[in-house]
Parts: sequence; structure tokens; C-alpha cells
Amino acid sequence: MRFGKLVLLAAGLLGRLAPAAAQGYGRYVDPMIGSEGLGRVFVGPSCPFGLVKPGPDCTSSPNSGWLPMPAPVTGFAQVHVSGTGGGPKYGNVLLMPFSGPLDRLDQAAPRETERAALGYYGARLKPSGIQVDVTAAEKVSFYRFTYPAHQPRALKIDAGFFLGEEPEPDAREAQQFVGSEIEVVSPTEIRGYSRIRGGWNNGPAYTVYFAAVFDAPVASFVTWKGATLYPGQQEQPDSGEKTGALLRFADGGPDSVKVKVGISFLSAARARANVAAEVPGWDFGQVLGQLRARWEGLLGRIALDPATPPDQQKLFYTGLYHTLLMPVDRSGENPLWNGPQPYYDDFYAIWDTFRSSNPLITLLAPEREVAIVNALLNIYQHEGYLPDARSGNANGRTQGGSHAEVLIADAYAKGLPGIDYPQGLAAMLHDATVPPGGNEEKEGRGGLLDYRRLGYVPSGVVRAGNRTLDYAYDDYCIAVVAKGLGETATYEQYRRQAGNWQNLWRAGYRDHGATGFIMPRDAAGRWLDSIPYGTSNIQKPYFPYTPLTREYPWYVCHWCGFFYEATSWEYSLSVPHQVPALIARAGGPAAFRARLDTLFARKYYNVANEPSFLTPSLYHWLGRPDLSSQRIHQIIDKSFNTTHFGLPGNDDSGAMSSWLAFQLLGLYPNAGQSYYLLNAPLVRQSVLHQPGGRDFTITARNFSPANPYVVAARLNGKPFPQAWIEHRDLVRGGTLVLEMGPRPAAWGTKILPPDGGTL
Amino acid sequence: MRFGKLVLLAAGLLGRLAPAAAQGYGRYVDPMIGSEGLGRVFVGPSCPFGLVKPGPDCTSSPNSGWLPMPAPVTGFAQVHVSGTGGGPKYGNVLLMPFSGPLDRLDQAAPRETERAALGYYGARLKPSGIQVDVTAAEKVSFYRFTYPAHQPRALKIDAGFFLGEEPEPDAREAQQFVGSEIEVVSPTEIRGYSRIRGGWNNGPAYTVYFAAVFDAPVASFVTWKGATLYPGQQEQPDSGEKTGALLRFADGGPDSVKVKVGISFLSAARARANVAAEVPGWDFGQVLGQLRARWEGLLGRIALDPATPPDQQKLFYTGLYHTLLMPVDRSGENPLWNGPQPYYDDFYAIWDTFRSSNPLITLLAPEREVAIVNALLNIYQHEGYLPDARSGNANGRTQGGSHAEVLIADAYAKGLPGIDYPQGLAAMLHDATVPPGGNEEKEGRGGLLDYRRLGYVPSGVVRAGNRTLDYAYDDYCIAVVAKGLGETATYEQYRRQAGNWQNLWRAGYRDHGATGFIMPRDAAGRWLDSIPYGTSNIQKPYFPYTPLTREYPWYVCHWCGFFYEATSWEYSLSVPHQVPALIARAGGPAAFRARLDTLFARKYYNVANEPSFLTPSLYHWLGRPDLSSQRIHQIIDKSFNTTHFGLPGNDDSGAMSSWLAFQLLGLYPNAGQSYYLLNAPLVRQSVLHQPGGRDFTITARNFSPANPYVVAARLNGKPFPQAWIEHRDLVRGGTLVLEMGPRPAAWGTKILPPDGGTL
Repeated sequence: MRFGKLVLLAAGLLGRLAPAAAQGYGRYVDPMIGSEGLGRVFVGPSCPFGLVKPGPDCTSSPNSGWLPMPAPVTGFAQVHVSGTGGGPKYGNVLLMPFSGPLDRLDQAAPRETERAALGYYGARLKPSGIQVDVTAAEKVSFYRFTYPAHQPRALKIDAGFFLGEEPEPDAREAQQFVGSEIEVVSPTEIRGYSRIRGGWNNGPAYTVYFAAVFDAPVASFVTWKGATLYPGQQEQPDSGEKTGALLRFADGGPDSVKVKVGISFLSAARARANVAAEVPGWDFGQVLGQLRARWEGLLGRIALDPATPPDQQKLFYTGLYHTLLMPVDRSGENPLWNGPQPYYDDFYAIWDTFRSSNPLITLLAPEREVAIVNALLNIYQHEGYLPDARSGNANGRTQGGSHAEVLIADAYAKGLPGIDYPQGLAAMLHDATVPPGGNEEKEGRGGLLDYRRLGYVPSGVVRAGNRTLDYAYDDYCIAVVAKGLGETATYEQYRRQAGNWQNLWRAGYRDHGATGFIMPRDAAGRWLDSIPYGTSNIQKPYFPYTPLTREYPWYVCHWCGFFYEATSWEYSLSVPHQVPALIARAGGPAAFRARLDTLFARKYYNVANEPSFLTPSLYHWLGRPDLSSQRIHQIIDKSFNTTHFGLPGNDDSGAMSSWLAFQLLGLYPNAGQSYYLLNAPLVRQSVLHQPGGRDFTITARNFSPANPYVVAARLNGKPFPQAWIEHRDLVRGGTLVLEMGPRPAAWGTKILPPDGGTL
Repeated sequence: MRFGKLVLLAAGLLGRLAPAAAQGYGRYVDPMIGSEGLGRVFVGPSCPFGLVKPGPDCTSSPNSGWLPMPAPVTGFAQVHVSGTGGGPKYGNVLLMPFSGPLDRLDQAAPRETERAALGYYGARLKPSGIQVDVTAAEKVSFYRFTYPAHQPRALKIDAGFFLGEEPEPDAREAQQFVGSEIEVVSPTEIRGYSRIRGGWNNGPAYTVYFAAVFDAPVASFVTWKGATLYPGQQEQPDSGEKTGALLRFADGGPDSVKVKVGISFLSAARARANVAAEVPGWDFGQVLGQLRARWEGLLGRIALDPATPPDQQKLFYTGLYHTLLMPVDRSGENPLWNGPQPYYDDFYAIWDTFRSSNPLITLLAPEREVAIVNALLNIYQHEGYLPDARSGNANGRTQGGSHAEVLIADAYAKGLPGIDYPQGLAAMLHDATVPPGGNEEKEGRGGLLDYRRLGYVPSGVVRAGNRTLDYAYDDYCIAVVAKGLGETATYEQYRRQAGNWQNLWRAGYRDHGATGFIMPRDAAGRWLDSIPYGTSNIQKPYFPYTPLTREYPWYVCHWCGFFYEATSWEYSLSVPHQVPALIARAGGPAAFRARLDTLFARKYYNVANEPSFLTPSLYHWLGRPDLSSQRIHQIIDKSFNTTHFGLPGNDDSGAMSSWLAFQLLGLYPNAGQSYYLLNAPLVRQSVLHQPGGRDFTITARNFSPANPYVVAARLNGKPFPQAWIEHRDLVRGGTLVLEMGPRPAAWGTKILPPDGGTL
């Protein structure tokens, strides 16, 4: 009888507890796509740009926290980032349910099952059989722990946990513990914080405050400090040691205990107030439903043909989903300064996101992109430099350029309202004129004095190659805004500097049939075939450099190569603002065509690296959009899918995902400029719902695998022979009909895409 | 009867409450010396290097918080700095007792009486008649509020108050509000914090957490947020608004309410723990006594002849006292990183303190100077640059050089143990080689690239004059340590650079009889009689520059002149590391003597400015210590006294006071070098108690106003003909007898003080 009741109960519980599958567009979001392999996406629930990202943490090493089974789960931390490379960040305030006595800190447990859906993560732990269900509001994680009947209902709250701890005290990119605190405020509330520094951006200390409230009273508890347990001690004030609490809920209540964890970057009381403001009740389904409704409002702004195969829809909507996870909206949670302006953190990094993530946000949720750009300007105003990357409330890391410039120019070129563009220009010019000195890893432009003096960053300065290309691109963006604002002298100067990439173009250099490469050059103007390393007069090791060099000798520090994360074969094609000039320098259209073909045929192309994002589209400037589409479709077929391994590289805060989402629509932006390249879409029809009720519909007529080419197009009923379209045409609404056919035709062969060089 | 009892009670209370006068050396400390006029010293109680400095705040403008009567007192804040110029800092967590209803935020009241003594500040407010007595532990303020009998006992705690608020949101050097919080934890405890940014060093946000505990229960309370009162609302979570609480203690208790305010830079719970750790009881006298005992242990390390007139003793011991107020020992309270190393904050600025404050700490409390230097190195290790000034947990402001170099060299030259000097050298070299770029107001050396290229900082870079002199001095300090560590190449290079001041020495330039001045020079090497201002090609205003120029035209920004806070007449004599070379450049001993005489006669000398601290002693290098002593005695007679106006300039964290204390003993250091100049003391005898029980006694034999000159000396019984003495001679203990006489004699005329130029 008792046994029977148990079984019944368990079955009943499961039936009751399993969250309803997401409806609408949300059902096509699969948070597990890209979770394994290089993708490193965050798998737990999050609101769009949500401050909390609760999810499982499996060891201290994975950036997203999660590892596939059978790795045991250490617990569930409240703050994560998605898709990042380099060292980890966050992983703060860890919860872990268990059923044993309150006698040890390690409560890690393997999973029996797990399931993730939009706004939901669930796992059943073993051997305890505890079911964990998680969802989230903006600043509040919502947990439901369902314990097997008649088992002790216990919970660990660890204020000292974080991702990426290393034994070496100040290891580069490792997070470092600073302090933590915990207080049992009442039988149903625990407050505390975790203060951590370092991590990927080598940032200063940030503090994650929390307030955890329960729907069941705590009957007994043990707090800890370091390795010592303190039964019944309510408060562990910060003494620079790790602290936390083991709780046992009173027996006799329902089997599930619900826990709301408010998070704040200001204070624990603020965290508690966030709980009260966002999640006053205890209905798991309601919180999940609200989260899904928020997503639905955004995902639904682009409606794919309902007949699109589910896997295509999954690729697309999961792509949108990943793109909208970061940066994180921390408005009202800025511990650095006060004011009504939006505050966003976790720009991770703009070097990764400017190409397609931010343009996709602009297209999907322009009000968010406006807020993001204003947040950047607000940071500039208070701290002196725009971030290129930022996390934990601090600028840190510049991979190449100062690419906030691209976001400002992109916003300007696309006419986003509500941004102080003169201030934007001032901020960009600060990057372009004030050397960051000893802070060049943090912000600004390293090697700026040389770049200004020589027109390129000379060998000897780390990442001289991509810095030169990136600065030239950023300078183009400055020229865009300066021209628009009528700042003629500035416009002229930066338009000239936009061509600085040519100063590292080694014209006669040949490699595998291609001529002309971005190559190392010293300050005296000499081209280098071997790079001297270091400044020692006694020992001066040289190492050879070729356009295919990707790995450097052991004595060259990480981040100290000629290019960041790429070869010269890849980066020499990364001049998105002056493609026609690039084609000319590379020997003209025929040579350039051959070079692109070689790149793809010999697998020199790296789909996983952002500087190559535009590369498959470069055929457009040769009048061959058919070849662009062909390459893009090949790349997608080969490198993207709906499995856990569905992303070919670090998602980088949605960068990879946004590239995919754009290409599925047949659109691809060239950031800092106002147009999109058009390609053969992978979906028959898409509707872009624009603010004000205006729709823009893209229809591929005669869409079928047998008709892979766009042969003609009509925009709002009129012939549209060009393979690119202006942003303003999309946002004013209308129809674009792409006629598909079995063979390439004249479409896109005559009116080539704009040349930023003619700015 | 009732009236009679009241009178009796009041009299009894006053008798019981008035703190015992300080005994021992502490009775010669008068915190009011230098409180009015330019001195700006903090007048409230503080432990040596104490974290809390509770005291009265009269408006938002004075840097020390205090203003003389009849200015009304706004309240009593817990954190202050002492003697600073520029914009204010701190003034956080304000308490104010009152007797009215809990219906308004402004409870400012004038004082009827006030009294300050070592470790104690007291004031009677009017018309309420409330007596406020304050003392302090390291991290805990201790208040006793004595209310007239049968009056409501009320208290305001303002978590939003701070010094230096300005209506302009981001006014330079103004503190800016970020956030605040308050919580009524229990009838006897309130917690909260104040988060403020900006201030003198334009620093990022710092947070002052507090826990206030009472010996009487709160019967009713009102919290506020912004301008709105919330009766009985226990918690005001941070929402970016100013908050606080008005409390009414239960009637019927004793007339006095005691309040302990724990302060922490980590958390409110830590602040509460600081109360428990430091002040477990409620005995005002005991806390005061403990504070005084701490001071006694330090002040007593130098014992003056007990027959010294009280005013002389007051000047001396108050001088020591002011010197030991800052920097502030925040060990265990560092929110930025974790570790066992000492942590000090409020270096304000080392440009001010390296000359005499730090050397005095070295002499008086070498263990503190070791901790301070280690704290600097720890900051370098974690943040990349040594501070030149630091406050609110952030580097900020370089006035001229990177003078942490001098502290490290001074410690090295004087053999302070327990410092990692190789790390020190690395930190110094970072200053000297890595330009701070856009952060040059914060740390490092602005204009460094020019300085390294040209050997001087050219006109066009702000503060080119004193930067060149300061960098040369700092480079000398690098050479000192490099030589000692056997780093020959570094030593040779920085020894050469130590002479860089000569590159701005305009040799033929004459002014009021003196020849040769440090003058502006452009990057092309041209001497400038007029300085072009700004970089505009259209409008290029020039302004004339002479060795007496102190004020600049209105369009020259503050901090943008050729020298910081001085004329060329002053700064051209500020080459403490190469005095003989200076004398030679200035035309030889006779010309130099005449030049010094002119400086003093024409009042070009500025007693209140640190770059001139050594100037009256320069006669020593002419073999005329008698003239040095004469000048020094004249300066002290004219500019220092025991009144509120007793300091001639900003005390600058004890800089002025330490100059005075040294000179009273007849000693004066030359920071970065290992010796002290000897002068005619102003006290008959002093005993320097050294660690390990070794005493060094300085005795002026035949001490009288009729015998103002040292005519001979004996060190440990042996003739000592030189007017300078090595640090090692002091610390090994012994006796120095100075024979005083009516006329100068041969003493000090032959063996001149060391020449840093021969390093």
C-alpha cells in the first residue's frame, strides 16, 4: 500500500511537474544546440539579455558551466556567460539539493536524466532521485527541487563557488576568490554574496549579491567558513574565506521545495527586492510562462514560413535565441555610477559580435541596440574609454581594434534614433587618438602611436597584423559618422586612414597561387619573412612567418602573434569596408576569384572565426552572388546542425548563431554600412515584423533544392536586379520576391554592392 | 525638588562624562592645531593610521568636514581625510542626535561648546543641549549622546551624506552619489552602506558599509528614501537614491545613549563583526583609553626633555600625531583582492609625503613604513602601477612624478627589512618605462615617451617643468636600488637619467640676480619665453612665462601649468639628489648663497609647498649649516604655532607637520638617501627609542636663546665635525651632543652632506 502510494505519487508528481513544452516560436529553441564541442553555449534558462542565467556547473573548468553526462553536477550557479572562449567568468552563488546529513560540503551528484527547453532546464540527480527544475525571471532564478517522498530535503548554498579557479594565485584569465558572506536571515531566507576578480578579462573584483527565499521553512542548518562547519551559526561575515550554508527543510511539507534566488550587483537587500518585484508568487509555471512570453515577443518579430522543416526552424530560432542572450541588461544594477541611462555588461567581445550579432539585434530589436549603444557611450563618459570587451563591470581585453566604433557607425548608418552621435564621435576619436599605454589589454588601441606615425602597426607590437586591419576598419567607421555630422576635417583624415590596411599589404608576395598578403613589417618599413621575438640584445630568436602560420613557437606568449586567431590567408581578405580596393590589390577580379576558390578548396577558410564571417560573400563584389550562396550553403550544410555539436566554433556571445540566422534568411550585413547582401535563402518565406506594424516579406519563388539560385528579384513589385538591399528598404516594410532557378542568371552581376572606399 | 534633581543630575553627568585629559605624551596633542586657515587637518578622534575618523561635518565643502563655530553641524560622519587640498573625499555615514519629532531630514544644529583632545571630540549642540562625545577604535566609532533629561532621545543616521556634493553631475573632483541602503536589523542595530564615486582623485565607486549598535532600544523609527519618509519601514534597499533613518530611543532609560558604529569596506556584516571584535563593551572611557594607549606607544618613541615648554611639546607631538593619521591601514578590509599582505589606502599624495612624512614614519615606526611599502608593491602587483596618490581603493592623481620610487629607495637606503626589493625595482621600472596613456592622471608618468626620447618633458605636455624634475629624482631612486641589487645596466641608465633636470636648465637666463632656471622648452629644443597654449591651428594663444609665474591665464586648465603649485624660483632649487651639481649650474657657491638669500628676502620661498621643503637646508652644501638653522628657525617662528591657524599650508596628510617635527629635533631627511641633515634643535634634548631597546639621544649642550648655533658635536663621545648623520647611526643607538654657542664656528663647514650625484 505504502509502496503503491509512493509510485503513484512519483508518477503524479512527474506528470504535474514536467513543464509544458514551449509553444509558438519558442518550441524551436533548443538550448542544447552548440552545447558540446566548441560551441560552449549556456544551456540554462535566461530572459532575453537576462541578468540571471541559472544552470548546472559540472566542474570549475567549462566556460558555460555545463558538461554532458556522465560528468557529475557540482551545483547550479546563477550567473553565466554563453559561448565564450578564453578563461571562464562568473559561475556565482551555487545551489545544490541533496538528501543526506548536513555534514559535508561536497554534494556533487551525477544526472540520471536532463532536459533543456526555452526557459527551462531540468535534471534528475542520482542516486538521490532529486528532480531539479529551473526557470528564470530577469534578475531572479526560480528553482523547484522535488525530493523523493520521506527523504530529508536538504540544500547547499555555496557563496564561495566560481568557475575557473586555479591553484596559481594570479593565473592569467583565472578567476580569483576575494570574499564571500552568508546570513540565515530567517527560516525562509538566506542572503549573502560572492566577490570574485580576474577571469577572462582580468577584471577587478565584482560582487554578486543574492537573496534566496524558500516556500518551506528551514528546520536546521550549518554554515561553513573555509573547511569548518558551524552548526546553527546564522552569520558568516566576510573574512576573505569561502562560506556557505547547508540547510535542511522541515519535514512534513510537500515533496518539492521552491527557491527563488534574487541576484543583484548592488546589494543583498536589492536582490531581495528584485525577488519581490519580479516573482511575488510561487508558481513555477507562471514564471516560466512569463519568460517564454518575453521571448515570443522577440522571436516572433521574424516569422518563417510555417511549412519550414522543424530542423531549419530550430537552427533559425535557436540562432536568434543565442544572439539575444548577451550583452546582459544590468540597468538599475550598476554599482559604479548612478543615472537613468541603460547599463549593459558582458560585451564578450565586440570584436566577435559587431559583424552579425549587433546587426541582428538592430534588425530584430532596434530599441535594444539603441540601449546597448547608449550604454557604451555612458561607459565612455564615466570611464574614459569605450569597451571593446567588458565583463564584471569592467572593460578588459582588446583583441584587435576598438570595435565599439563599428556599433556606433552601424547605428548611425541605419538611422537608429535616440543616440547622441556627436558624443559617439567624440568617444570614437578618443579610441583613435589617446593611447591606452599600460592599459592596452584593457581598452583603447595598443600600438596607436606607431599606427598614427607609420600608418600601420609594426612588427614588435603584438597582434600587429590584425590591429592594423581592425584600426583601419574602425577608422572607416569614424569617417562614416564624421561625414554625416559634417565634421569635414575629421572625415577626410579618417577616410584616408581607412586605407591603412594597404600599408601592410605586401604586394608581390605569392603563396599557393595568390598574390599579395597582409604581412609583418618592421618600423623601418622592411617586410619580414622571419619575425624577431622579444627585445633582448643577447638572445634574439626569430621564427619564420608565412600566410599559413597559425601556431607560434612556445616562447611567443599567447595573444602575441601577428594575427589574433587567424592566418594571413584568412585575414588578408578581411577588409569589409574596401572590398573593391582589396580585389584590385589582389590582382583584379579573376585573380581574386581564383584566390577565394583556393581558400575554400584548400580549407584555408575557417568557418569558426569571426574575421572570416564576410569572406564567403566576397563573390558578390565579383558579380557572382551565386557563388556566395553556394559557399554559404555548403558551410551551413557542413558545419551547422541541430545537435549538441551544432556550432563549429565558440558561439562567442551569439556571433556564430547570428551569422547562421542571417544566412538562413538570405541576408547578410556588412557592419558599419547600411545594406545587406542578398543570397539564396534557406527558407521559402520570412516576414520581418517592423516597429509600427510594417512587415517586410522575403519570398523565394519556386523554392526547391532543384532551384538553388536567385535568377531575378522584385522589390515591392519592381524589378530589383542587385544582390544587396538597403536597411531602410527593410524597415519601411514591403516585399522582396526572389525568383529561384536551377542556374545562375544575370541577377546581381551588374550593380555590385557598395564600396565603402568611395565614402 | 524635581528641578533641583535635574540640576544635580546634569552636573553629575557632566562631571562623570567629561573625558579625563590625556596623560603622558598624548596631552601635548592638540587636534585643533592647523584646523583653521589652510591646514585643513581632521579634528576628530583616530587611531594611528586608523580606518575610522569620526568627526563633525559642517557643510558639504570643507575637506576635513569641520568648520569653526558658529557654523552649524550637519552631523558626524565616520570617514575623513586630514589636511588635504583639492576636492573633498569621504564624509560617509552621518549621525546626528536631536530631540524633536521624526518628521524632517535636516537636523543641523549650531554648537554651544566644543572640545578636542587626543582621541576625543566633544560638542554641545544648541538649542537642544545635547552633548556629543566621540572616540574611536581602529574600525569603530564610539559615540555618547547625552540628552537633557526628559527630552526625546532621537538620532538621525544618514547613509546618503558625503562631502563635496555639487549640482553639476560629473563635476571634476566632486564626489558623486551612487547608492545607499539602510536596514533596521533590530531595536538596537542598524546596518547599511553608502556608495560614492569621484572626489579628489576622480576615483571609481567605493562603498562604506556600517553597522550601528545602540545601548538603548529604538522605540520608533522612520526610514527615508529621497525626500519621502517611511514610518516603520525597516528596509530601504538600494535603488540609487539617498536613504537613512530617524530613530527615537525608548523613553525611561539613562539620558545618554551610546552608539558604536562599525565601518567596513567589505560588508555591513563585516562592520558588525568589527564592532564585536574591537569594542565588545560599552565603556566610553575604556575605548578612549585604549586609543590613547596606542598613541602613547608611538608618540613615546621620541621623548623630548620634560622641561621643554608645553607649546614646543605641543608643536612636536601634534606634528607626530598628524603624520601618523594617514595613510590608512585597511588590512583585512580590501574589497579588491585577498591575501595576507597589508593593505593601506589614502596616499594623499606621495608627492606630498615622500619628503618628510614617510621618513618620519620610518624613524618612529619602521614596521609601519615596511607595511606601507609592501602595500604599495601589492597594489602594483594586482593593478599594474604603483600609486602616486590613492583613495577610495583606487589610484588617482599624479601631481608630478611617480614618487612611490622615493619610498622604495628610502626604505632600501635605510635598510628596512621585509621588503622584496627586486619586486620593488620591477615596480619602479614599470613606472619609468610603461606610459600610462589615457590614464596619466591616475598613475604612471605622463609625457614619459617624450621624457625618454628628449631627456625632458617638453612644453605642450602639462606640468612639463615639475614632471621633468620629479622624474629625474625618481630615476635617481631607481638607480639607488638598481645599484644595490647589482643591476648594473639599469643602474647606469637611471644614474644618467637622474641628471635629466639639467635638460630644462636654461643656463644663461637671469632673474632678480640669479642665473639659470628650469624653464619651458619645446620638443625641438627651443627655450620658450611665451608658452603656446593648446593645439588649435586657428587660435593659438601664447602667454609669457617668467621664473615668478604662478598664476596662468583663465584659459589654461587647472593642473595644466608648467609647474604644479610652484614658481620656477622655487622649483629650480628642488634637486635634492644632486645639490652640488645644482650649485655648480647656478654659478657656484657664492652665486648660490646669494640666490638663496634673495629667495628668502624677497619672499619667493613658499613655506607651504612641499617642493621647497629642503630649500632652507641647502646652505648645508655651502658649508653653512648655521644659515640653514637660522632660516629654519625663522620659518618656524613665523609660520607655525599652536593655534587653530598653526600650519601655514595644507597639512597634506601630515607633510607640513612632519617637516616641523623633524626640524624641532634638529634633524631633516633627504628622502631616498640614508642621512639626515643636522641643525640647531629647538629642544634641549630628545631621545629616540629604537626597536630592541636602543636609544639615540640628541643633546644640545648650553642650549639657550643666546646660543643659537651648533659650534661642535660629538657622536658617541667622538668629535663629529659634520652637519649630517647616517640613519644607521641613529638606529644603532648612541649619543649625539651638539655644543651650542653664540656664533657660528667650523662645525659643518668642511665635510659637506652627501652628493647623490656621485652615486
